[in-house]
Amino acid sequence: MGVKKIGKQTVRLSEGVRILAAASTVSKKEGEGPLGKYFDKIVEDSTFGEKSWELAESRFIRENMELVVQKAGLKMNDMDYLLCGDLLNQCTASTFGIMDFQIPFFGLYGACSTMGESMCLGAMLIDGGFANHTLVGASSHFCGAEKQFRAPLSLGNQRPPSATWTVTGDGAVVLGKKGNFPCITEITTGKIMDMGVTDANNMGAAMAPAAVDVLINNFQDTGRKPQDYDVIATGDLGEIGRGLVVDLMKKEGFTMDGRFTDCGIEIFDKNTQDTHSGGSGCACSAVTFCAHFYPRLMSGEIGSMLFIPTGALLSTTSSQQGQNIPGIAHGVVIEGCGEKEDK
Amino acid sequence: MGVKKIGKQTVRLSEGVRILAAASTVSKKEGEGPLGKYFDKIVEDSTFGEKSWELAESRFIRENMELVVQKAGLKMNDMDYLLCGDLLNQCTASTFGIMDFQIPFFGLYGACSTMGESMCLGAMLIDGGFANHTLVGASSHFCGAEKQFRAPLSLGNQRPPSATWTVTGDGAVVLGKKGNFPCITEITTGKIMDMGVTDANNMGAAMAPAAVDVLINNFQDTGRKPQDYDVIATGDLGEIGRGLVVDLMKKEGFTMDGRFTDCGIEIFDKNTQDTHSGGSGCACSAVTFCAHFYPRLMSGEIGSMLFIPTGALLSTTSSQQGQNIPGIAHGVVIEGCGEKEDK
Repeated sequence: MGVKKIGKQTVRLSEGVRILAAASTVSKKEGEGPLGKYFDKIVEDSTFGEKSWELAESRFIRENMELVVQKAGLKMNDMDYLLCGDLLNQCTASTFGIMDFQIPFFGLYGACSTMGESMCLGAMLIDGGFANHTLVGASSHFCGAEKQFRAPLSLGNQRPPSATWTVTGDGAVVLGKKGNFPCITEITTGKIMDMGVTDANNMGAAMAPAAVDVLINNFQDTGRKPQDYDVIATGDLGEIGRGLVVDLMKKEGFTMDGRFTDCGIEIFDKNTQDTHSGGSGCACSAVTFCAHFYPRLMSGEIGSMLFIPTGALLSTTSSQQGQNIPGIAHGVVIEGCGEKEDK
Repeated sequence: MGVKKIGKQTVRLSEGVRILAAASTVSKKEGEGPLGKYFDKIVEDSTFGEKSWELAESRFIRENMELVVQKAGLKMNDMDYLLCGDLLNQCTASTFGIMDFQIPFFGLYGACSTMGESMCLGAMLIDGGFANHTLVGASSHFCGAEKQFRAPLSLGNQRPPSATWTVTGDGAVVLGKKGNFPCITEITTGKIMDMGVTDANNMGAAMAPAAVDVLINNFQDTGRKPQDYDVIATGDLGEIGRGLVVDLMKKEGFTMDGRFTDCGIEIFDKNTQDTHSGGSGCACSAVTFCAHFYPRLMSGEIGSMLFIPTGALLSTTSSQQGQNIPGIAHGVVIEGCGEKEDK
């Protein structure tokens, strides 16, 4: 086994990779939610002045990535690699969002787990000695996602209670080597898990087994239990998916208590925002991490966190052809600034 | 700058990552081409006994990846990470192709440059100390790609001479640390390049600037010139794209001679196979590398190679909305077995 591998699916970084800055740009509905005051930028018009939703998503990416690099006190040219992805066909939101930056680019597709995938690979590129700084992120857009995956919004289709609401926005972080910043210390990479769910309006159920797989492997590989983290946050399981994870983990002998939350639950107020089971989309975990968790890791309020963005690996074609909806999730262990010494 | 970074876009691996095995599985048309006798498996029926082209592509992936692991004398369980991608919406060919393997998975989207992206990241994960073995690959399917990107085959649309023919199949390699095998020594990661091409039937022109960007950066970062490699092979530029690269490089002061070829030119016989400008698709560079170049690197016939899979970053939506077709490419420097000592 490689020296950094500490179990079947987990690696421990040599020195820890610092999260130098985090930025989130969202649209009106997200701004009206419980996390409204923590986002860096709220764009009232979800078309962002562009002529299509797809171009709007690219603009969310571009402006938010420019913002996070600026927040890190760096220049775009300081970024050795950029890693990101989105939900649109052929990841074009990312392509057109970042191409003007002219940074070596690795395009990712992990569905709504993409923020986890980009943080994992972005951190490993630094810890492996290939980069000083990486810029990583993920994005989604409610209107673009509905149009592509479900039905045109103007049809006014009813949404079942198990449905989630795709978050509009972009979340991005700059990773680096030095300074007293929250630190990525371990990575638990997920496998694709398929438990036979076929309902595209119940993504929480489709993704729950992937979150469980990452949780169990993280605990086995590190010897920890859920209570060893201050916060465990999945990406976009929503109310239903979170409940399933609690049940499934109980069967495995783990008690998931109040320190286990889900970004899809945090981002919207289900009682006033008509979002049913919660938020979803690549941006859900990305912006919730950047706006809600990062500042608390920075202040030391959160000492350690297991962040697990979750994704459902379907397309309209695979669903229409009757295939299951497999899920994937990636776990990122982050230590806050409280007890850690600056290296 | 990180210790492994040797220029703006290039890193040099500490010890070189070995390509322990390569495998290619293709369909009938590829089997009838000039490389026919070198493919590991030729499947006469491009549906591969499945009920959809999408499922067929997943089967090409699954069977070829099983084959390459077997050729490496290893078990699937020995693979620390799997990295791959394809052209289908939401990369579902890969999802359903590899999910039964139950290996930690990073899904990639680099369009037809995906074999380059997967080799780059798969090699860096090993060289960075995170893995002993990675399984990396890329796939495409002519029928699935035509259906999704252009028009149903049964319409019988005419193809212009600048069009290329999507290769059906999967190419995959197993990367590792030890043994006298061809060795990945350097990686030049590409940026997204947009030169204003909008014709989706002229992908070679859309991708040529990305190949040129990688070539120039590789030469600048390493101090080499084209003649320092025995072979330089782009992914799927075809005749037209290769010609453009030669012209563009000449303007930059570099003479690209006969040692510069393109996998899309190698794989089909344009005079007898009606493939117009050449082969394309993620599988084009993947299977051509595995069947045509890998054995010659293994035998020492090729001493050094710069392999540059190329990709066009479009979707039907971005094209229909009038956006340009940007390109990306990733460069992988591979040394043959001739002069290298076993470590």
